[in-house]
Amino acid sequence: MKTVKIFAPASVGNSACGFDVIGFAIDAPGDELIVSLTDRHKEIKIIDIQGDNGKLSWDSAKNTASVAIQAYLQHLGIEQGVEIRLHKKMPLGSGLGSSAASAVAGAVAINELMDKPLKRKDLLPFAMEGERIACGAAHADNVAPSLIGGFVLVRSYNPLDVVPIKTPQNLVAIVVHPHIEVSTKTAREILPTEISLSTAITQWGNVGGLVAGLCMADMGLIGRSLQDVVAEPVRAKLIPHFDAIKQAMLGAGALGSSISGSGPSVFALAANTDTAEKVRIAVTTLLTKVGMPHDIYVSPINLQGAKVIG
Amino acid sequence: MKTVKIFAPASVGNSACGFDVIGFAIDAPGDELIVSLTDRHKEIKIIDIQGDNGKLSWDSAKNTASVAIQAYLQHLGIEQGVEIRLHKKMPLGSGLGSSAASAVAGAVAINELMDKPLKRKDLLPFAMEGERIACGAAHADNVAPSLIGGFVLVRSYNPLDVVPIKTPQNLVAIVVHPHIEVSTKTAREILPTEISLSTAITQWGNVGGLVAGLCMADMGLIGRSLQDVVAEPVRAKLIPHFDAIKQAMLGAGALGSSISGSGPSVFALAANTDTAEKVRIAVTTLLTKVGMPHDIYVSPINLQGAKVIG
Repeated sequence: MKTVKIFAPASVGNSACGFDVIGFAIDAPGDELIVSLTDRHKEIKIIDIQGDNGKLSWDSAKNTASVAIQAYLQHLGIEQGVEIRLHKKMPLGSGLGSSAASAVAGAVAINELMDKPLKRKDLLPFAMEGERIACGAAHADNVAPSLIGGFVLVRSYNPLDVVPIKTPQNLVAIVVHPHIEVSTKTAREILPTEISLSTAITQWGNVGGLVAGLCMADMGLIGRSLQDVVAEPVRAKLIPHFDAIKQAMLGAGALGSSISGSGPSVFALAANTDTAEKVRIAVTTLLTKVGMPHDIYVSPINLQGAKVIG
Repeated sequence: MKTVKIFAPASVGNSACGFDVIGFAIDAPGDELIVSLTDRHKEIKIIDIQGDNGKLSWDSAKNTASVAIQAYLQHLGIEQGVEIRLHKKMPLGSGLGSSAASAVAGAVAINELMDKPLKRKDLLPFAMEGERIACGAAHADNVAPSLIGGFVLVRSYNPLDVVPIKTPQNLVAIVVHPHIEVSTKTAREILPTEISLSTAITQWGNVGGLVAGLCMADMGLIGRSLQDVVAEPVRAKLIPHFDAIKQAMLGAGALGSSISGSGPSVFALAANTDTAEKVRIAVTTLLTKVGMPHDIYVSPINLQGAKVIG
């Protein structure tokens, strides 16, 4: 049986100011997906899921990886059977793009098995189909970075226009995942449907600043631009100790900090590994003190996106 | 009498998607300002204004150039008298940053006469004071480009954070000024005070795209990003034939087109001078046909900002 093993990285959606439009991938954690071709006509079968505490569906019509594979095969008119083994090596529902990583891994895996008829970036629509099953909407600010790596701007959804943004060397991400549940649905519903023009102007000034800062490797500008005046003010209350976590990160020298995706994870960016380590220690000390169970990840920005690992 | 003559360029505010935050300067038209030191203690006197059809105030407390000079002298605690001659060489109330150009020229002139104690970019607050007299609010998306040249992002107003954005070679601006009046006040009042979150997301996707396109000299991306879903839809109706002008510009090969500042001027960007000439001809043909008096300017992006010319 022709088989491929894919790693797809976690990602930080929104990136503070870039609500729904800017995300970036990190080296770890991520998902591992093993996909094999079978001779069973059109049968897409999930035969193993590990690391999800039994939370994910084994129904191939409801799992992001299998849905992405199915969308791919259907688009190319290939009537192939596949077997899927999913090893979740990252937390679910954490705001780290867990469903996006699985969907990306599925799309990349099946394209590898078909001897790559499509280019990497052209796999995006299929991975987004997988993401749609998990989130109800086909957001791309996790899927795109997990697929192609680095910082990615989703300039437009209609038509889809995804722009890789240059990523400065040395930039390090720190992501803390407090062990609480925040449903993506609640995090969406709590958002205002209208915002004041002046708030919007503040936000798009920062979006411009973040993109310029990344392109010019201007760490100070990146830091000043990592401000979210739209989602963070309403979503912060869903995350216990959010303000303290953010202040600890900034106090330890982080360039900026905000909610990762729709939370509950909180991310920061640091200009180098030394500062990142200080940020890690500050957050760990704080959350230990307040008794909040958590994971914390310190990782360079992933520049490659999903990759074949076996 | 120590005297200096300054040219300050016109500028295009908003730049489509970058409402209130992105502007760029063009080589022509612009304002010329002659400022001389006098021995009359603290007296700031306007002794000539030309090219304004009698519209501008000769009261130095109400003229953007003299207010900028006054703000500068007051800030540095210099009790100097000056005489000012202003030669408007660009249309007033056109959406081309006429008041900003005069204010910039004033701030640059007095700094030259004082032997440049301040750096160019540090003149911004004084030029903004001049702009405030004209517009009621201290916007910077015309003042900053006229002062330092190129494309400029005003990331934040509070604190003021102005970011020069790399400008691709070859980019050419075409600006048509239909001879009608649109008051800045009306153009402001017609704007919504609230916008939908989805509209805001569309706009900040384009802001990110425009900044990325400029930084990477990606003409296609610049073009796709030159879309304004906030101000243009409501302001277009204040400009007769706006849709036809825009379509003529795009049809002739412009990368994108929108309202310059608060109008009535309409700008386009083109990837080279040949296309810019085609755009000029298309718009001239259209406006001649419909009988709309106008001026049209074809200019490279001004990369230097205001300069000493005598």
